[in-house]
Amino acid sequence: MTQRIAMALEYHGRGLCGWQRQENGPTVQGHLEEALSHIEGSRVGCVAAGRTDAGVHAEAMLVHADVSAERFVRSPRAYTHGVNGMLPDRIRVTGVRSVDGQFHARFDCRERAYRYQVWNRNTASALHAWQHWWMPRPLSLDAMREAGGRLVGKHDFSSFRASGCQAASPVRELRQLEVERDGFCIAVTVRADAFLYHMVRNLVGMLVEVGTGRMAVDEVAVLLEGRDRRMAPATAPAHGLYFTDAVYDGFCSRDLVGTELP
Amino acid sequence: MTQRIAMALEYHGRGLCGWQRQENGPTVQGHLEEALSHIEGSRVGCVAAGRTDAGVHAEAMLVHADVSAERFVRSPRAYTHGVNGMLPDRIRVTGVRSVDGQFHARFDCRERAYRYQVWNRNTASALHAWQHWWMPRPLSLDAMREAGGRLVGKHDFSSFRASGCQAASPVRELRQLEVERDGFCIAVTVRADAFLYHMVRNLVGMLVEVGTGRMAVDEVAVLLEGRDRRMAPATAPAHGLYFTDAVYDGFCSRDLVGTELP
Repeated sequence: MTQRIAMALEYHGRGLCGWQRQENGPTVQGHLEEALSHIEGSRVGCVAAGRTDAGVHAEAMLVHADVSAERFVRSPRAYTHGVNGMLPDRIRVTGVRSVDGQFHARFDCRERAYRYQVWNRNTASALHAWQHWWMPRPLSLDAMREAGGRLVGKHDFSSFRASGCQAASPVRELRQLEVERDGFCIAVTVRADAFLYHMVRNLVGMLVEVGTGRMAVDEVAVLLEGRDRRMAPATAPAHGLYFTDAVYDGFCSRDLVGTELP
Repeated sequence: MTQRIAMALEYHGRGLCGWQRQENGPTVQGHLEEALSHIEGSRVGCVAAGRTDAGVHAEAMLVHADVSAERFVRSPRAYTHGVNGMLPDRIRVTGVRSVDGQFHARFDCRERAYRYQVWNRNTASALHAWQHWWMPRPLSLDAMREAGGRLVGKHDFSSFRASGCQAASPVRELRQLEVERDGFCIAVTVRADAFLYHMVRNLVGMLVEVGTGRMAVDEVAVLLEGRDRRMAPATAPAHGLYFTDAVYDGFCSRDLVGTELP
């Protein structure tokens, strides 16, 4: 008897080749499947809400897997600590719950959220270098917010889609885009039904261009309507990006984090 | 002609053997003196407001050094970026100003501040593991604050002083002790004229004992009056500790951070 479980996963992207298992280097999926397979004594596969790139972090990725019902139900807490004990320090299961056998982390996900962190100071950070994109030029939050406001809604986001994107449609509904400053950190928070390949990093690359004044706010609509990636500014680097939430009917990954393990 | 300069320094303690230069491993002082000496073409020494231990971080350490007046005054900005270019990523000069030739980073410092970060969640953090002490047990902030309140003031802190401490007197004036929660992070902020060796980590070790309920608030006064380190709880680990400010007549290290380099 197997039990399908949903796990909230936190990971630090440094030194990891992204979510998806590959031959060339360590990945989150590779580490997690190895840990679960070791515990189960048979090969266990995992599916995530989103496939983050190399260097991208996660505060609350949602992953499903099928595990031994008896072993899990006896103590979900012991099971989770067992998995964590086999993972490298940079990957942690932070919450877990049992789900229906039909539940699918990717196909049932109704909304994803990301945060992008920019370090806006004339000197780089020694403490936060791997968690922010360093941008020493002054940035106008008002301009960034105005530009962001023009992107919210249901649009063809072809201008912000990387060439390797496998999505059938370039249309996405961007439900939230907020820009906040806290000290030297500028955080861009986005929510959408789903995101195209490199979409968040491409949006942030453009917002920073607008923030520095090198691109006018009015050009945003032109860029969006042009539906041509070659018109858009450069992609923001991976290490400032965090997957923060995956929303499902009845729960979301962020709410699983730090709950008392059952 | 030399010019004495004061630098604000940010560093990540991981992999560093603390501030003070030594033969056995990399130190902040060693890296900084090497960078300055290379630029100056002669041996340059540095003095810091405080000598942090291996693994301890700094948001704004204050360091003084004597450098070539001509080279520095021509462009303090270029000088600073030159120094940063020779430092490892984990150490950054984040602000600089010229000071009087009699200024002394250690002896003229009137107040020091530290912050200690506890990660209070049932599972460890993948993203913040090296920046917090992981404490999975529930903590009462009220109890920690009450205990902290009994420590504020001028006291003989022998009970919180490590055996290797070289200070002439164990009396210090603890001017502030605050405990705040932000999500899963509990931050303890302290300010004093100066701190004894391991004093902050020993204070935090005790506050956490009180927070878990293993030690009663009333025992704090007994411990303080006992003036015996052997009575006190264990020292909190180094990697949760940050040197955050050094105060002088007319300026403090924190205010130097991120100022537009002149």
